[in-house]
Amino acid sequence: MPPLHAIAHLGHVELRTPVLDESVEFFTRYLGLTETGSAGDSVFLRAWDDYENITIKLTGHATSGAGRTNLRAAGPEALERLVAAIEAAGRGIGWQDGDPGYGPTYVFTDPDGHELGLYYESEWYAPAPELEPALKNQAQANPARGASVRRLDHINYLGVDVTANSDFLCDTLGGMVTEQIVLDDGSIAGSWLTFTNKTYDAVYTRDRTGTPGRLHHIAFATDTREDILRAADIALEQGVFIETGPHKHAIQQTFFLYVYEPGGNRIELANAGARVILAPDWRPVSWTEADRAKGQAWGLKTIESFHTHGTPPVEHAP
Amino acid sequence: MPPLHAIAHLGHVELRTPVLDESVEFFTRYLGLTETGSAGDSVFLRAWDDYENITIKLTGHATSGAGRTNLRAAGPEALERLVAAIEAAGRGIGWQDGDPGYGPTYVFTDPDGHELGLYYESEWYAPAPELEPALKNQAQANPARGASVRRLDHINYLGVDVTANSDFLCDTLGGMVTEQIVLDDGSIAGSWLTFTNKTYDAVYTRDRTGTPGRLHHIAFATDTREDILRAADIALEQGVFIETGPHKHAIQQTFFLYVYEPGGNRIELANAGARVILAPDWRPVSWTEADRAKGQAWGLKTIESFHTHGTPPVEHAP
Amino acid sequence: MPPLHAIAHLGHVELRTPVLDESVEFFTRYLGLTETGSAGDSVFLRAWDDYENITIKLTGHATSGAGRTNLRAAGPEALERLVAAIEAAGRGIGWQDGDPGYGPTYVFTDPDGHELGLYYESEWYAPAPELEPALKNQAQANPARGASVRRLDHINYLGVDVTANSDFLCDTLGGMVTEQIVLDDGSIAGSWLTFTNKTYDAVYTRDRTGTPGRLHHIAFATDTREDILRAADIALEQGVFIETGPHKHAIQQTFFLYVYEPGGNRIELANAGARVILAPDWRPVSWTEADRAKGQAWGLKTIESFHTHGTPPVEHAP
Amino acid sequence: MPPLHAIAHLGHVELRTPVLDESVEFFTRYLGLTETGSAGDSVFLRAWDDYENITIKLTGHATSGAGRTNLRAAGPEALERLVAAIEAAGRGIGWQDGDPGYGPTYVFTDPDGHELGLYYESEWYAPAPELEPALKNQAQANPARGASVRRLDHINYLGVDVTANSDFLCDTLGGMVTEQIVLDDGSIAGSWLTFTNKTYDAVYTRDRTGTPGRLHHIAFATDTREDILRAADIALEQGVFIETGPHKHAIQQTFFLYVYEPGGNRIELANAGARVILAPDWRPVSWTEADRAKGQAWGLKTIESFHTHGTPPVEHAP
Repeated sequence: MPPLHAIAHLGHVELRTPVLDESVEFFTRYLGLTETGSAGDSVFLRAWDDYENITIKLTGHATSGAGRTNLRAAGPEALERLVAAIEAAGRGIGWQDGDPGYGPTYVFTDPDGHELGLYYESEWYAPAPELEPALKNQAQANPARGASVRRLDHINYLGVDVTANSDFLCDTLGGMVTEQIVLDDGSIAGSWLTFTNKTYDAVYTRDRTGTPGRLHHIAFATDTREDILRAADIALEQGVFIETGPHKHAIQQTFFLYVYEPGGNRIELANAGARVILAPDWRPVSWTEADRAKGQAWGLKTIESFHTHGTPPVEHAP
Repeated sequence: MPPLHAIAHLGHVELRTPVLDESVEFFTRYLGLTETGSAGDSVFLRAWDDYENITIKLTGHATSGAGRTNLRAAGPEALERLVAAIEAAGRGIGWQDGDPGYGPTYVFTDPDGHELGLYYESEWYAPAPELEPALKNQAQANPARGASVRRLDHINYLGVDVTANSDFLCDTLGGMVTEQIVLDDGSIAGSWLTFTNKTYDAVYTRDRTGTPGRLHHIAFATDTREDILRAADIALEQGVFIETGPHKHAIQQTFFLYVYEPGGNRIELANAGARVILAPDWRPVSWTEADRAKGQAWGLKTIESFHTHGTPPVEHAP
Repeated sequence: MPPLHAIAHLGHVELRTPVLDESVEFFTRYLGLTETGSAGDSVFLRAWDDYENITIKLTGHATSGAGRTNLRAAGPEALERLVAAIEAAGRGIGWQDGDPGYGPTYVFTDPDGHELGLYYESEWYAPAPELEPALKNQAQANPARGASVRRLDHINYLGVDVTANSDFLCDTLGGMVTEQIVLDDGSIAGSWLTFTNKTYDAVYTRDRTGTPGRLHHIAFATDTREDILRAADIALEQGVFIETGPHKHAIQQTFFLYVYEPGGNRIELANAGARVILAPDWRPVSWTEADRAKGQAWGLKTIESFHTHGTPPVEHAP
Repeated sequence: MPPLHAIAHLGHVELRTPVLDESVEFFTRYLGLTETGSAGDSVFLRAWDDYENITIKLTGHATSGAGRTNLRAAGPEALERLVAAIEAAGRGIGWQDGDPGYGPTYVFTDPDGHELGLYYESEWYAPAPELEPALKNQAQANPARGASVRRLDHINYLGVDVTANSDFLCDTLGGMVTEQIVLDDGSIAGSWLTFTNKTYDAVYTRDRTGTPGRLHHIAFATDTREDILRAADIALEQGVFIETGPHKHAIQQTFFLYVYEPGGNRIELANAGARVILAPDWRPVSWTEADRAKGQAWGLKTIESFHTHGTPPVEHAP
């Protein structure tokens, strides 16, 4: 098993949308991302404090859902070892050119069929003059437009077999489970994994429909809980659909807001406060059915669509 | 050079105070820490979400200042390698028994003479029934008393030779410089280091008095910037001396408040927002004298005592 | 009709509780009120920035529910005119001695039978030395204990006939309706009234059980929305029952949290932001059933108990 | 003396600027106001929750400074009585047509020569479809652009004789002094007045240069303190000059940020929390020189330019 931190962090994610223009409008006007270019059917967008070139690659497609999730290796040697581990697991697809600004990317799938990519080489983002930040320790000027999220935070996949997927990320990539849902029959219905000291970078939750390869949501980090309250106000004002929140998860204690972008993908705005996972001998926190029956941290019942809505929706599954 | 993450995190810090009772009162009533025991001239205190037993070991002493800073290694092998590196550097003192709840600790000094300790074995904190948290992913109930800080965040030493000290932590312990102050003569006047993905865990800033071994401050993390505004209100109400803030550092963009505890030690309350250091090829951000002349992020001039007040004060230096 | 501002503000409210000691514990430990004395079966409590002596008079009783709601007149002449108006309306009971620190109080009832009192004379609160505030424009030191609410904000009665009660307060006391719920049959199911420039001071919402004289809730103001998120965290930690929230009302845009104190009374923590009602020709905002079907501001469905739980509970009604 | 509340509230303020286009850019891009029209050399701007048509009338001029400050009377009769009081005081100029959307306005000056206007008739703002708010109790959609301030809050004049000006507003308009600065020689160096239950609507502070008719600043209200921290971040990013703050005034406990708009006028962003002035027998809080020597609430020294910078600047005074 590779060491924790062999993966440096979650890189950019490709999202598919059947309504590309409306989705671009959502990401730029509501979330406050900056459009930096396009290629083919894809538009590149970035959050203001992500140091690489791309945060989201938004691709026109027949359905919504996640395309490739990219992960940056901690170094060239780490990349080599990780690729070897994936090949040994028989899940490799092969090397491809990276997206603009990114080096060679090794493509593979998790057991559920979600596409992932591993890379190390990455050009840092160099802002155009009008996007130069005032402080030199920031990637880009904050546009102060809409919710103006700081950076990509995590991705939450749906998985038919949570354990198989979670084990794969732990065994081949060095992920560590920080929290999990353990049902009364002993099976794992949700698994939160970290590659870093963040509370989590990737999540698998059980797909009740049994459809492989679906996405539950991607999440962006805001600096404060107030930013998320404000984002809810702006969603209301701009007609963005709020699924649930703002509220606080019991699991991971994340303060959250879930909205749908026009293409149908669920988007979370998330704030972890000052909570980090520092213990090298962290013991996964297990949440039982009885725990879950209490609802979210402050008692909000988990909304039903949370258990059913995934992208691509079942009816559109390829 | 050991890899980044060989040190898991900053552990508990010993602070000295000539007025032990008043200092305990400050840490419990103002900061909201919980007293968990005592031994000899020392009182043990903990912040509500630190998972280990001790956050601060407060020791009665002729002067203020820092006693030992403890660092937890990422594992038993990491501990061995780190100790070997320190011994090779000729800075080791030797193994000692750890504080209650902690295993054997290897004691050493940095070039400035600050005492540090390395350990791996650590019992997790088990709260008494009345301190059981409502959520199982939290170390202890939040007492909701005073500023109620979440966890220890970082330590800032004064150092006669910043470069020598900073290099020592990088070379022997695997620290990474994330930001630094570079004077016009090319010398380094401040160095912010991380062992994790946090923006920083330890800092050296130049001691203008040329006195070795002094402490600038220790810092506690709060979940929000509002927590820090509230902490300023409470400081005013409780007669706690506010040195400067609340305001936002340009360096690291930390939102801060600096107060003095009754023993004379400077205490920071700090919030980094959602800022983390994820890039494995992070390039230290260098702040010049011209940058510094602009003041803090929003223009506040750095208060003069920030450059002069350290503990133990010069007149009390051992 | 008396002019707006004939009533200066909502004064102290009497709350009844079958478990006096537990209720006192809730108000002091959770809400952060200060106990200032007692008389007979009543305990006096105050929020830290209420300028008069009493915020809540908590009285041991067979049931929960509201005792007298006190209103301070804008002056001696205003008091006289208001009393004359009440007498003319045939709802007066007569003059009684005020609570400790308050002058003669004219007692009366609204059409639903809630007891109210009018007074002008009031001694200002003089804090004991240990409760002296740091800033001289504040009534008392903020204890920084629990939710630490700033002041009483409003009272929300249940009423069998909302219109009759609301009209009574407007016609005899100079209230102004700022917002209301208008059902499809044209009847008024909720009426929010102000005596000041606050968005509201008193509310009547329809009692679906047809029981007169019940209380929906009383509310305390906090300075920020963050204070309310924090109060939810503390409620969870202290085992205080959260009924609903934190969330934002569509009506009045109040950010809210509803909890139950141990005696069964519903308590709101409320924040209006910078919203005030300044227009002298304000037109009541009417919310229709279609509007209400959208839920609260961010879509949260109004919790069912909100329509059923009132105090005293139906089964205990005297 | 007219009763408190004869003035309903501070209406729109005219600001002069030698750089009209840059000033418009500041008010729309940084503060988030909406441009609604223009007439002659003036551009009309509004904050999103002001219910009338205009918040700021920005007029091209040789200098910066305040043009007319408009005040809305509580009703037609109140208007008549107020005008009679002004005429009796010999400070009237006469009736003029109001700005677009406003009825006849009675123009007069305070003893310092600041121009004011009284009116009652006012059309409420009717938003264009693209500016329709999501909630019907809000004047206009929140544009979520820049600092996005909610409404105009107060105006702070410089005055050669604070007492004469303050007395004039109390005696003729029904203002009430809520707080004041009393120097050791007994003279009043600052006077905070309210016409409502807000903590203050107008302020006079002593003009140390002895120049009559100057403006210290106008202020906009934000819903939270976090909004003001965010506004400071945006000012830094957009190159808006920050004079001082964010910090908390001891006087009135207002959380503040002061910036300069490009024309040279000082603009405050202000948050009062839940603090309101409800006592009809409020006793002005007096701040002494000794109090003032402590600095702002958390100890920040009052910035020197606060005592010298007024508009129009001395060198440009007409």
